[in-house]
Amino acid sequence: MLRDEFEWIKSITPDSSFQKELITGIGDDAALWSVSEDMDQVVCVDTMVEGVHFTKETMSPYLAGYKALAVNLSDLGAMGAIPQFYLVSIAISKDWNEEELDEVYKGMADLAYKYKTDLVGGDTVSTKGPLVLTVTVIGKVEKGKRLLRKNAKPGDRVFLTGMTGESAAGLQLLLEKTRYHHFDSKEGQLVKQHQMPSPHIEQGRILALSGYRISLNDVSDGIASELNEIAEASGVVIHIEKDKIPASSLLAKLPKADQLKHQLYGGEDYVLTGTVSKENFEELALTFKQSSLPFYEIGKVGEAGHSAVYLHSKEKETPELLTKQGFNHFRER
Amino acid sequence: MLRDEFEWIKSITPDSSFQKELITGIGDDAALWSVSEDMDQVVCVDTMVEGVHFTKETMSPYLAGYKALAVNLSDLGAMGAIPQFYLVSIAISKDWNEEELDEVYKGMADLAYKYKTDLVGGDTVSTKGPLVLTVTVIGKVEKGKRLLRKNAKPGDRVFLTGMTGESAAGLQLLLEKTRYHHFDSKEGQLVKQHQMPSPHIEQGRILALSGYRISLNDVSDGIASELNEIAEASGVVIHIEKDKIPASSLLAKLPKADQLKHQLYGGEDYVLTGTVSKENFEELALTFKQSSLPFYEIGKVGEAGHSAVYLHSKEKETPELLTKQGFNHFRER
Repeated sequence: MLRDEFEWIKSITPDSSFQKELITGIGDDAALWSVSEDMDQVVCVDTMVEGVHFTKETMSPYLAGYKALAVNLSDLGAMGAIPQFYLVSIAISKDWNEEELDEVYKGMADLAYKYKTDLVGGDTVSTKGPLVLTVTVIGKVEKGKRLLRKNAKPGDRVFLTGMTGESAAGLQLLLEKTRYHHFDSKEGQLVKQHQMPSPHIEQGRILALSGYRISLNDVSDGIASELNEIAEASGVVIHIEKDKIPASSLLAKLPKADQLKHQLYGGEDYVLTGTVSKENFEELALTFKQSSLPFYEIGKVGEAGHSAVYLHSKEKETPELLTKQGFNHFRER
Repeated sequence: MLRDEFEWIKSITPDSSFQKELITGIGDDAALWSVSEDMDQVVCVDTMVEGVHFTKETMSPYLAGYKALAVNLSDLGAMGAIPQFYLVSIAISKDWNEEELDEVYKGMADLAYKYKTDLVGGDTVSTKGPLVLTVTVIGKVEKGKRLLRKNAKPGDRVFLTGMTGESAAGLQLLLEKTRYHHFDSKEGQLVKQHQMPSPHIEQGRILALSGYRISLNDVSDGIASELNEIAEASGVVIHIEKDKIPASSLLAKLPKADQLKHQLYGGEDYVLTGTVSKENFEELALTFKQSSLPFYEIGKVGEAGHSAVYLHSKEKETPELLTKQGFNHFRER
């Protein structure tokens, strides 16, 4: 990164230095920090592409930045980790002016502030194509406390830390009417769920610090997809019950079939889903309640030895096999 | 990252697990590793864009991958750090087929193998624009040993760990003739310097472990630019001597003015330049010699209090002020 580039980034982002471990941040090509042996380090990276993950009609520049960081923080949440630092690599097209780029960084900075996460570096390059925004996030988690997908066991309860389907419904509204439309209050909430998802960091921390055997995933591609990942990683069958999946009142206006489709396959909700033993489920439910955070039981883990996810409902005698089918309305590839 | 994406990446890269600290790598959305309090952690990120940093006429897919990682490793070298992990985020255009993408990852894997660096994650997305390749590299360096730009002091000697200018001359050949041209041996060496730069990790380690007060930068934008960064960060004036700058015999065929331009402003050589006290320079020169690595003295640090870089030459009585002027033939912005 050239000096004038990070001078620019410094000028538009608050001078953040939340993490006392930080030794060098923006200003050198690499960031350096000290560590504690009590903690393991975590890193993840995600890329958002204009025209694939968002368009100027679905997201303002501010929201594009906000969401790019939120998606990454959600990955840390799924590990039970504490966010520490982020780096931003941006390939800028000519269609984006300086003010819009400032807004991208401001969107990230506002979310970063909430989680005391320092911007410590990045790269700024040009492209002849659409904007490409890559965020790298670094976090830490107490040694041995990290949560993985592979820990599900027969008899476990399947949990969910929030509603699913709202983001997909919000996206549908944005694709039909664009963000310039004047949405009513309920529609506005759906749109916000798509544009400004809350990474479930606090929820991930409760789960990690509990010390229980927990399998965990964040809902980026829909619960059908995420639970399949847990089932595969753990080698178990997972059963969920249609009537137990929390139904958002915001989706009530949609046809029933669309509601269920969004709940199962919608994706981009960035809540957490996972499994824990029956006894520990009750204790976690209490802790979540004390923190005024939702915590839903939506099913249980069946036999081990092979992997599948089934949806049970009163209407149908035979449970329905749920495949991944995570989808993205913009995606082509 | 969706499961099938990392299954794909796993299938085309060797199953690397050089770093015993690694707890989870490809297979979960985030990578996790354990740390030692003796070491600080380092992270950096760089992006290469097709049509900006390379084209299919200047780089094969294999070489694009190789160089994307090399550029990042060079940033670690400039810190004196040991590479540990890398993550790859790739936005893929329709102009790139599966075999070409395999080659991109193979190029990275071959270089990573050399430095025992594990691929631990990434993201794979599509774009309607040109290929955008973002590499994040994580490394470690002994506590307090990291090297920064701000350590130059009056009286220091200015050093260089390799020739400069060859990469720029190689790029010029590639722009004129494309990589499909049959280059003669000398031209081929210049082209290789551009396509497959060697990150100076070993050199960075010698400098870091020496324990001397050293200022350091890697030459990505040309020595004029990098020395200006050191001068600014340290608040000193730097004087370099034209006749001491190592002249590559490979550049001998070029007009004298072009040779000097490449040496000073060429960039992308990824050697290291910096400063160290006169006494310690002699000791470092010996250590580099024992390791069969070049180590050139090209000037010295003048007064402190303001910052500038001057080029002295026998032909001119007044030294020439060198501004940054790092450039990239592809860059538009």
